[in-house]
Amino acid sequence: MAGNTARPGATATSRVLAILGAFDPDHRELSLSELARRADLSLTTAHRVVAELSAWGALSRRSSGEYAVGRRLWDLGLLAPVQTNLRETAAPFMSDLYAATLATVQLAVRDGVEVLYVERLAGRASVPVVSQIGSRLPLHATGVGKVLLAHAPEPVRVAAFSRLTRITAHTVTQPGVLSRQLSRVHRDGFAQTVEEMSLGACSVAVPIRDRSGAVIAALGIVVPDLRRHRPRLVSALQVAAQGVGRSLP
Amino acid sequence: MAGNTARPGATATSRVLAILGAFDPDHRELSLSELARRADLSLTTAHRVVAELSAWGALSRRSSGEYAVGRRLWDLGLLAPVQTNLRETAAPFMSDLYAATLATVQLAVRDGVEVLYVERLAGRASVPVVSQIGSRLPLHATGVGKVLLAHAPEPVRVAAFSRLTRITAHTVTQPGVLSRQLSRVHRDGFAQTVEEMSLGACSVAVPIRDRSGAVIAALGIVVPDLRRHRPRLVSALQVAAQGVGRSLP
Repeated sequence: MAGNTARPGATATSRVLAILGAFDPDHRELSLSELARRADLSLTTAHRVVAELSAWGALSRRSSGEYAVGRRLWDLGLLAPVQTNLRETAAPFMSDLYAATLATVQLAVRDGVEVLYVERLAGRASVPVVSQIGSRLPLHATGVGKVLLAHAPEPVRVAAFSRLTRITAHTVTQPGVLSRQLSRVHRDGFAQTVEEMSLGACSVAVPIRDRSGAVIAALGIVVPDLRRHRPRLVSALQVAAQGVGRSLP
Repeated sequence: MAGNTARPGATATSRVLAILGAFDPDHRELSLSELARRADLSLTTAHRVVAELSAWGALSRRSSGEYAVGRRLWDLGLLAPVQTNLRETAAPFMSDLYAATLATVQLAVRDGVEVLYVERLAGRASVPVVSQIGSRLPLHATGVGKVLLAHAPEPVRVAAFSRLTRITAHTVTQPGVLSRQLSRVHRDGFAQTVEEMSLGACSVAVPIRDRSGAVIAALGIVVPDLRRHRPRLVSALQVAAQGVGRSLP
């Protein structure tokens, strides 16, 4: 265990964080020995920390004997500003957009050089999409991502342009083409993608601005086909995004 | 600081948990000194733990200088089974219920002697309700709560019946009346409330069963008036609840 002599308090906190950090979307349930290994802790130490975390409700033991993130951490996560301020403000506008379109409706923020999905509404007839709540995807290949990239500071654009991965045959990976798309986001007030992230899925997205005019999030819709409905979808998104912006705490 | 001699590991974990536990729905942003006081830690210890938690992303510093729950804890909470299994499975059914009714749609589980709201969909025209995602309310006064109470083990019923608080003038607080209501939940397959939690809000709710037939959650709808639409709402809820139950992982 690194550093368990010089800064005992820091080390102890880092052990707790190593246990918590062992969970990710691909590792939602872990045995004690997997937890110890992924957290790089001895089994004894892991056992002690896990027992305390479980008693508090940060972890929960499943019927399989494995551990999962507990309801108390779920509770705690709901207090994060991204949830309480943005998600709760946007939710009723998103419900109404969904009811009007029956399309997948998404709310996202920029997290470094990725787009982080904060909320997603979809029905059983909606186009299947890759993103779930909490998912992170590249900025350049999604409608909400293009909006956020168009309004990102220069260093983020540089970083994003250095990693233009191809996801489908339609993903825009040429810097010049993407650059012109981002200019059009500024000019037209919306971004669009055609099958850049998933085949059969097109998206339009608009910025959400706070009272100072800064772009703090993007609101988007995913549909099978943009051709006929785009103007109507863009209008509906812009009205909703203005409503969200005005209602932010 | 209690117990920082006998079990140094335990104590260190408990300090981290004390900092995290200082946040609740009424305390979403806290200064360092408030955090230290609420966690019962010295300012020095709180400062050290908070610095580590912030560096990891468990806490975030706001522009006000106060601390809030960070995006990484929000992420982590999304991995909890209540979110990944139940909420994600139910979400598309809830979206479709919302689109069909434009009413507030709620998904809840029992957490001890309270009802815990796991998801809520509402539009701008929906009846305002008390509950938010993550809220806990008494079991006896809400539609989803009555469903969960009707299917709760005997000790939970005893505990719930010992605390029949009156929330509005219409809250059912007589044990005999509530008991007959719970019998009707079993007989009819749904629960209803009329202004028991908020004036102007009525609800109907049905159980969600897993493959073994055990009731694991309740799905409900809140409307201004039940008289005309109840049979239609109950049918829609029952179809959706069956769909969720069959789709659970």
